[in-house]
Amino acid sequence: MSNHIYKKIELVGSSPNSIEEAVQNAISKASQSLRNLRWFEILETRGQIEDGRIAHWQVTIKVGFTLED
Amino acid sequence: MSNHIYKKIELVGSSPNSIEEAVQNAISKASQSLRNLRWFEILETRGQIEDGRIAHWQVTIKVGFTLED
Amino acid sequence: MSNHIYKKIELVGSSPNSIEEAVQNAISKASQSLRNLRWFEILETRGQIEDGRIAHWQVTIKVGFTLED
Amino acid sequence: MSNHIYKKIELVGSSPNSIEEAVQNAISKASQSLRNLRWFEILETRGQIEDGRIAHWQVTIKVGFTLED
Amino acid sequence: MSNHIYKKIELVGSSPNSIEEAVQNAISKASQSLRNLRWFEILETRGQIEDGRIAHWQVTIKVGFTLED
Amino acid sequence: MSNHIYKKIELVGSSPNSIEEAVQNAISKASQSLRNLRWFEILETRGQIEDGRIAHWQVTIKVGFTLED
Amino acid sequence: MSNHIYKKIELVGSSPNSIEEAVQNAISKASQSLRNLRWFEILETRGQIEDGRIAHWQVTIKVGFTLED
Amino acid sequence: MSNHIYKKIELVGSSPNSIEEAVQNAISKASQSLRNLRWFEILETRGQIEDGRIAHWQVTIKVGFTLED
Amino acid sequence: MSNHIYKKIELVGSSPNSIEEAVQNAISKASQSLRNLRWFEILETRGQIEDGRIAHWQVTIKVGFTLED
Amino acid sequence: MSNHIYKKIELVGSSPNSIEEAVQNAISKASQSLRNLRWFEILETRGQIEDGRIAHWQVTIKVGFTLED
Amino acid sequence: MSNHIYKKIELVGSSPNSIEEAVQNAISKASQSLRNLRWFEILETRGQIEDGRIAHWQVTIKVGFTLED
Amino acid sequence: MSNHIYKKIELVGSSPNSIEEAVQNAISKASQSLRNLRWFEILETRGQIEDGRIAHWQVTIKVGFTLED
Repeated sequence: MSNHIYKKIELVGSSPNSIEEAVQNAISKASQSLRNLRWFEILETRGQIEDGRIAHWQVTIKVGFTLED
Repeated sequence: MSNHIYKKIELVGSSPNSIEEAVQNAISKASQSLRNLRWFEILETRGQIEDGRIAHWQVTIKVGFTLED
Repeated sequence: MSNHIYKKIELVGSSPNSIEEAVQNAISKASQSLRNLRWFEILETRGQIEDGRIAHWQVTIKVGFTLED
Repeated sequence: MSNHIYKKIELVGSSPNSIEEAVQNAISKASQSLRNLRWFEILETRGQIEDGRIAHWQVTIKVGFTLED
Repeated sequence: MSNHIYKKIELVGSSPNSIEEAVQNAISKASQSLRNLRWFEILETRGQIEDGRIAHWQVTIKVGFTLED
Repeated sequence: MSNHIYKKIELVGSSPNSIEEAVQNAISKASQSLRNLRWFEILETRGQIEDGRIAHWQVTIKVGFTLED
Repeated sequence: MSNHIYKKIELVGSSPNSIEEAVQNAISKASQSLRNLRWFEILETRGQIEDGRIAHWQVTIKVGFTLED
Repeated sequence: MSNHIYKKIELVGSSPNSIEEAVQNAISKASQSLRNLRWFEILETRGQIEDGRIAHWQVTIKVGFTLED
Repeated sequence: MSNHIYKKIELVGSSPNSIEEAVQNAISKASQSLRNLRWFEILETRGQIEDGRIAHWQVTIKVGFTLED
Repeated sequence: MSNHIYKKIELVGSSPNSIEEAVQNAISKASQSLRNLRWFEILETRGQIEDGRIAHWQVTIKVGFTLED
Repeated sequence: MSNHIYKKIELVGSSPNSIEEAVQNAISKASQSLRNLRWFEILETRGQIEDGRIAHWQVTIKVGFTLED
Repeated sequence: MSNHIYKKIELVGSSPNSIEEAVQNAISKASQSLRNLRWFEILETRGQIEDGRIAHWQVTIKVGFTLED
């Protein structure tokens, strides 16, 4: 992070398989409309249970991106 | 919350009457421009005092909504 | 709270109407199986939104009760 | 809040009826001895239970007031 | 989460392999005695080290389940 | 902590004499009904005052125990 | 705590001997000018070291007392 | 803050010189596209080091602005 | 901090220029009525924005002072 | 953890693949110079994004090790 | 604390008897290799249970010491 | 931050003049013995008061540096 201004937004990604995939899914969705995504931070990791099995990992992240000049 | 991606935004609603109404006012405002509002979380409850009476309840919330495909 | 031992459990109560009613609903449910409920503390206040209106208030509380001798 | 100095004090108000009334009760008491109360922030919401019913809401707040010149 | 009352309990699951497996192990154990497990939240992730290798992932979670009528 | 599953419960112990005794009192009570208590963590230390003297130390702890196979 | 209004103040007590004594010292000092002290909560425990020995325990507490009618 | 609805966004401003300048830089950038900026809160202050000197102050803030009718 | 009892109060100082000046302004005001101010801790840094410029820095501090014998 | 004294240090490990691998990489590095590593706790999980993909997982941990006699 | 630079390290001390002794044990160990220990802060108090009795108090502290010129 | 391992240490810097200078003083001291300092984070800002004036700013920071191969 150098001499720029960044904005951070909060997203919740989900995946049936892993925390990593849930984060990547949120970032992939955000990158459809935002350029210059630079970093993320995990805020919260939750999930839903069905029949004693983890059905969805739901990971809340903040994503930072450069505001362009 | 199933297999979707959500975004969360932070709002401050106000009401002269109650915490509940302040939250609803923020959600009503947000629903004018955003579809698919799904849930909220209260972050902070404050208010302003005039002549020893609560003049405004001011409630900060996060609101989650589905990012559409 | 005098010279007793207490246990605290965590509950989520819900209500379509108010935070206060959601807390009371959780306490009423707990008092069906636990005697000696003594106090509660609100941990988190959330809710679900349907069509731009608050559909359910969901309040997480801790409830303390006396462990009997 | 403009170019003033404020002091904040911590109070616990109670009410048999609601969170809002407990806050107002604390502010009413404080306004008997302090002028220039300006705002409050809720820190903690607790209550006492008697026979499975909420007997008292007890709300801890910080209250800010202007230190006069 | 609709118009129900939920209880949340705190568990620590462990696994030699991954965070995800440690969470699933805790949920599998809990589902032996509790029906209606609905969601979990990760509170803390720790682990034990032996000879410079992670021997056990130990993940503390809260698990929410419906209190039946 | 090895390859087991643990449950954590929250207790408040009290003692007129010391923090240590309040913790031990809570653990002694819990060990009447639960085997395999393994560790505790202090969450909060409070107390009641009578005539300018500490009448009771009240210590909130989490206690972890092994869920047996 | 029943239907009263309370004020909470923050004090730091010290003692060369123990946490408990540091808390009692702060309460004894406060009770010289304030009646109706009711409860305290420990916020922070620190101390000073001289020559590798603990010279002073310094315990920050909040003390609650009844505002009289 | 009166009877309005506000939105809060999170920004990271940077400056080689001071915390204050980093905050002002973030606000200046935001005010290019948003009217009615009203207040900010500092969340985190970090910076980058080059050759033992602070090269950039990086300050994360929340900025609140009025949602217009 | 040696073998004394201290009290801590919470103040909000403001300045159009800097965080440091806002803190000093709060301390200068407090020292008009309190002797023996010893230390302060910054709790929160906020500010107000007018026309895209920081109009006031508002810094919340705790100030500790010796209670005299 | 028995009757020993431990020291805890804070490390940031990174990996292009997973949270688990980032933690192991930090521990492997630390074990080159420190014997008796005993446990770790995850403090923060972040990462860097390049072209809409997670380029590096960066996990901050505390690692505890026995101070030898 | 005057015009010096300090370093803070994190230690876990243990004792079968009391919190105070666990802290002193950690400080005594640290003072074997570090001069100029100045203050400590308690971060966490835990312990291990054997047969329903507290076997070890384990107290995590930060210790500050002067970096010499 | 790319594919490296970092260590973070905690320092307290002081200055009679400003927060920025207190941070730089801590970093300058650390850079005498550590190469590769990369970033810092402010944890706490305190200070000492003499005769109603801020005598020293005392800023606690974490400093991250690369562990070399």
